Formats: sequence, structure tokens, C-alpha cells
Amino acid sequence: MKRFFLFSISLLLCLSSYAQQEIGNRGGQVQVDSPVIDANNRVTFNLLAPNAQSVSLTGDVMRGLGVEGRTVDMLKGENGVWSYTSNPMPSDLYTYSFMVDGLRTIDPNNVFVNRDVATVTNKFIVGKGLGDLYKVNRVPHGTVRRTWYPAPSNGEPSVRRITIYTPPGYETSGQSYPVLYLLHGIGGDEEAWITQGCTAQILDNLIAQGRAVPMIVVMTNGNAAQEAAPGESSLGLERPSMGLARTMEGSFEVSFPDIIKFVDNSFRTKNDKANRAISGLSMGGFHTMHISRLYPNTFDYVGLFSAALGVGRGGDNPLYANIPATLQTQNRNGLKLYWIAMGKTDGLYQSTIDFCKQLDDIGMKYTYRESEGGHTWTNWRMYLTEFVPLLFK
Amino acid sequence: MKRFFLFSISLLLCLSSYAQQEIGNRGGQVQVDSPVIDANNRVTFNLLAPNAQSVSLTGDVMRGLGVEGRTVDMLKGENGVWSYTSNPMPSDLYTYSFMVDGLRTIDPNNVFVNRDVATVTNKFIVGKGLGDLYKVNRVPHGTVRRTWYPAPSNGEPSVRRITIYTPPGYETSGQSYPVLYLLHGIGGDEEAWITQGCTAQILDNLIAQGRAVPMIVVMTNGNAAQEAAPGESSLGLERPSMGLARTMEGSFEVSFPDIIKFVDNSFRTKNDKANRAISGLSMGGFHTMHISRLYPNTFDYVGLFSAALGVGRGGDNPLYANIPATLQTQNRNGLKLYWIAMGKTDGLYQSTIDFCKQLDDIGMKYTYRESEGGHTWTNWRMYLTEFVPLLFK
Repeated sequence: MKRFFLFSISLLLCLSSYAQQEIGNRGGQVQVDSPVIDANNRVTFNLLAPNAQSVSLTGDVMRGLGVEGRTVDMLKGENGVWSYTSNPMPSDLYTYSFMVDGLRTIDPNNVFVNRDVATVTNKFIVGKGLGDLYKVNRVPHGTVRRTWYPAPSNGEPSVRRITIYTPPGYETSGQSYPVLYLLHGIGGDEEAWITQGCTAQILDNLIAQGRAVPMIVVMTNGNAAQEAAPGESSLGLERPSMGLARTMEGSFEVSFPDIIKFVDNSFRTKNDKANRAISGLSMGGFHTMHISRLYPNTFDYVGLFSAALGVGRGGDNPLYANIPATLQTQNRNGLKLYWIAMGKTDGLYQSTIDFCKQLDDIGMKYTYRESEGGHTWTNWRMYLTEFVPLLFK
Repeated sequence: MKRFFLFSISLLLCLSSYAQQEIGNRGGQVQVDSPVIDANNRVTFNLLAPNAQSVSLTGDVMRGLGVEGRTVDMLKGENGVWSYTSNPMPSDLYTYSFMVDGLRTIDPNNVFVNRDVATVTNKFIVGKGLGDLYKVNRVPHGTVRRTWYPAPSNGEPSVRRITIYTPPGYETSGQSYPVLYLLHGIGGDEEAWITQGCTAQILDNLIAQGRAVPMIVVMTNGNAAQEAAPGESSLGLERPSMGLARTMEGSFEVSFPDIIKFVDNSFRTKNDKANRAISGLSMGGFHTMHISRLYPNTFDYVGLFSAALGVGRGGDNPLYANIPATLQTQNRNGLKLYWIAMGKTDGLYQSTIDFCKQLDDIGMKYTYRESEGGHTWTNWRMYLTEFVPLLFK
């Protein structure tokens, strides 16, 4: 046994030098752990950079540090390791980068990265609170599919990529499930909610806690000119862009029935209004508002997360005419929940206030949820954790 | 129309400042494109780093540059942009990093990254050849599922994550399909083949070209102590490791029938020996050799890619006793293909030569494919493109 152990260890060491693709000079770097989260949710960031003149920490992490500014200096210690230790941080998911002599870089000791449009940063989760909903826990897990659907109403491209979560037990239960359609913002795609939004983790955890009913979640691509997310389409590894064509001009609204048809044909869905919800963030909130009123007998649950509602009213696409009349039709048809969430410091705040007044004018009921903060994934993940438990009950 | 256009543009600009999570100080960086691939497959790498004293390019990209060494210096140009332009590069997928004053960093202008065990690098594809098989092309696409299966024979954890590719048309054809089980190396997991290995792209492209029959590909996690890939398990965002317990000591071989059972119960498979293949790289080649001989009536197609065959023979797990006898049984039962691929400069080269001699001694036929290069994903992707067309014909 001992001989086998020694043999295995030496083989492991031998393999270690082969098992990776040659990645060139790894710089002879000492192993440094980063980030390190202690029992009190204090987080220490470390970077080995002996030649650097200045290193700072930056990113969405700043809101959890309780310090002012957009960066915080790290201090150089022994062996050239720069460090910063936070005060206890609120439980959440955070993203960060290092600035090394003015160059933004990821943490080489943290392989977990997050792409937000065209920016790659690191991420980590602080637990013992909201952040626990974003973790993979020891609960039954759903399945996440990346697949492609026919979109004949979209024109070109007419085959498009889509991400679909089915709940734990879907494969064997024989049951049918309600469906939430979940839409991304500008610069996003069918990867946004499943990666940045932690949708699978949130659904797995809320279902396990009995706070949400098992449901299918359909994460669409709302950029009608786009076949798929950057890197997943025949355009190759092109740089993601905020300025895509055909995003808020009616195409996605027109082709949305292709998606519902595909989902109802491909999955065991409860395919009626009482069992369909739609929600989206920012541009996806715009799409949600319009799709839900344009197909006014389709969704009993509507969620606007930091919705970009100001656009389109001045446009010449007839889809965007007669908004109050179509909202009235939607209201007359009845629906169970019209949920509007907005952050206090969001630049789109006033447009949501204006929209609420418009709903008041036609006597349409809605639930308004105002949060701290602005136009951030921090809020959108939190809104999802609040919206999902309200559905299909 | 013009007014709508102007309105849309101004709204887009307005939204642009909100649509991203606050990522802190983005450094006021000028947009720089990198990498840029010209019509002759020359690749230019650019990095804006005005304060840097030295910048070099490193990584697996070096083998395509035709220059010696593990790094190549980049030159500082105007505006603080450091650049390097290659000669025409062979068509392939490459990974790279920058070394900035000794610190390894990813290219901030390339959002496409590759995790190899615990190292994140950038990637790009040079087309007009082998690399075209690694691209998403305008061909019918399969579906990729990340799901979880019951593994009662594994002990703890008894529910494990798995990645499954189903071919284009699976959802609607009503047909049954053959299955390839595809195993990763040490340090890898159920994400390795689908991300680094480009399995979905290779299968989509080979099927579209009529070079491969439509098949299901099952990408397992061969680390028996591991619930799921790093970041996808209840261990949280832990650092990936090469030194996991229970990797080459029999557990995975013992629990493999759980996987076959799950796949045959969950998918429309042709569930006989003639319609099953198994292959793996490095440790996965070790697993493939042992699993295929331990279940000698299960696979008609076996592929060893740079297999780590030396281990286990000295071990005390009775699974690893009587290897020649079980190979003879496998041989007597008959199989259609035993395919062995190895790179000339691989540190495991001799163990494959020794194994081939062992097969010769018992009169077992095999196909031996010797390539240039060593123990790299470059070879493993290429081996997959060669192995898959040989299956189920």
C-alpha cells in the first residue's frame, strides 16, 4: 500500500508537468491565495507584483467595502505581495479587478471570471445572507441547456441560440411546468442571466427552500440581428458591443411568438396565460413591457427590472403607437402581477415614475418595489430572488 | 424616421452608461483591438500599457509563431501601445497571455478566455484549416446540457454533474443515437472537453460535412471525490487543483455503469456495444483503457489520447490486477477500433510504446497514430477531429 502511495504521488508529480497545455512562462510565481474570506466576511485581496509601483482594487466590490471612491490602494508587503483587507462585507456577489501601474488586470489567483458586455472581471461570493442564493448548494439541481430555435419571424438570422433551465426532477416527473421568460439588457445576450444573473442557482435554491414553484426559465437573446452571444455565433470571437442593430425597434417583439412556440413544442409546459411570466432588465424591461401588452392574453405575470421605458414612443414603428390603449386591453384581460422594480439612483428612475403614473391614469394595478442602488446586476439578481417567489401561486 | 434615429442614438448613449454593472475605474483606456488577424493569418497583439517597462507575449501561442523561446518581446509604439505581429500562423486555436513587468495578465481587449486547471488565458482561432472545425459555423447545431446524474456506486458525492451534447435534430427526429463517452485529464472536469476541447463545434462541423454520424457525446467528471467542476459545486468558488483524491484508484471505473445507466434511461440511445465508444485524454485515457477492459462487452470503439497508462499496475486495487487477461477477454469479445494517439515529445510517450507492445504480445489489433508535439490540448482537439469520423460506421 505504501509503495502504491509513493508510486501514485510520483506519477502525479510527473503528470502535473504534462497535464496542462503549455502555457508558456508562468513567471515562477509564488502561490498566493486571493480573495480570502474569513469567518466574519472580511475579504483579503492579494497580488504578487514585486515590480509594480502602485496597485489598487477596483470594481463593483467598492460598494461592499464601505469606503469612498472608485478604487482603494493596496499595500505592498514582504515578498512583493500587495494586499487589502476589507471590513466585514454584506453577503452578496461582487466583481473586482486590480489596477497595476494604471493597467486593469484580473486576479491571477482567482479563475472565476465574469463577462459584462466587453469587460472581464473576477468574482466572489460573500455568504451568510443574500449571497447564499447565488451559490451552488447541496440541493436538487435543474438542467441548463444551450440550444437553438427556429425564428422564422425574425428574418435573418432565422436560427438563434437560447438558454433554458428546467427544474430538478423535470426529466423524470412526467409533469408539466409553468414558464418564466427572462430577458437581458443592452449589451447582454442569452448568456447574461445564466452567468451574471446566477439564474440556475437562484431557482435551485428557491425551489429547494419551498419559496418558488418548480418552473422552466427561458433566457432569450433580445438582439434580433444576433445569432448568438459573442463567441457562440458564426461571427467568431468578435468583441461584444453595446451598439447592435435591431434591439429596440420592434423586431424582437414581432418574433417573440417563435420562442413561445418552440418552448411549448419542445418542453412539457403548462401553455396558458396563468402559467406564463415574462420579465427583463433594462432593455429587457422595455421588451417585457411591450411584449406583454402586444400579446395581451399571454402572460399573467410581468416583471420590469430597471426597465428602459423611455424609448420607442417617438419611433415610427406602429408597434409603439397606442401604448395606453394596449395597456388598457391587457388590464381588461386581467393579470395577476405587474411588478416594477427600480433603484433609487438609477438614471432611468424618472421614466419608471412616469410609467407608474401612466398606469395609475388607466387604473392598472401594479406592485412597485424601490431599492437602494442603481442600474446594476446587484439589483437585478436581487429582484429575481424577489420576483420568482411571487409566480404561479 | 430621422428624428427616431437621433432619438434612438441618444438613448443608446444614455443607456450605455447604465447598462453595465459599475465596474469601477476602467482606466480611461483608449480602445485597442487585440488580437487582429489579417487575411494572411498574421496576428497582431496590442496592449495599451504606457507605464510598463517591458511587455511580452507568452503561452501556447508560441508554437504558432515560429520563434524560439517561451516569450517574445512586444514593442512600445505611439500612445503607449505595445505590439507584436506574427508571421502567418497555422490554422488552429491558440491561447496566450501578456507579461507586463513580470506580471502575467490577460488581454483586456479580448473577452474570450480559457481556463486550464487553475490558469486563465485568452484564446483566438486562426482559420482556413483545422481551426475552422473549432469555430461556430452556419451549420445545424446540437444542444449542450449541463445536468446532474445519480451515482449510487460512487459513494460520496452520489449526485454528480455531467455535460451532454445531443446532435442537431435530436429533439425532433424521434431516432435513437450512438454514444461517445469522452473523458478528461487530471486537473480537468466535466467542463474541459466542452470548453477547451471545442467538442460541440467539432461535432456540429463534422456532422454537417458528412464526416461523422450524428451521435450523443457524454462528457463526464472523472474525479470521483468531486461533485462538479470548480465553481459549479457546493464547495463554492474554490481554486482548481491537480491533486484531487480518488482519481486513478478505481472509483471512477467502478461507478462508470451509473453513467451509462443514466444516459440510456434519459436519452434515446442505441444501447449496445456496436453503438458505444469511449475515449479520453491523459488520465482519461487511463480511465478509458481500464473501463473498456473491465466492461469488455460494452464498447466497440476505444480511443486513447496521450494516455497516462503507467499508473495503477503497482497498486493494490484488484481492478488493476490481471490487465493482460482482461485485455484478452476484451479482444476475444471483438471490437471494431482500438485507437491510440500519442505526441512525439510527450513525456508519456514511452508508456504508450510499452502498452502497444503489450497489445502486440496478446495479438490485439489497434491503430497507432503518432503526431508532432506533446501533451497538449492542441493535440487532443486534433485527435478528436480524427477519432470521431471513425465511429459507428
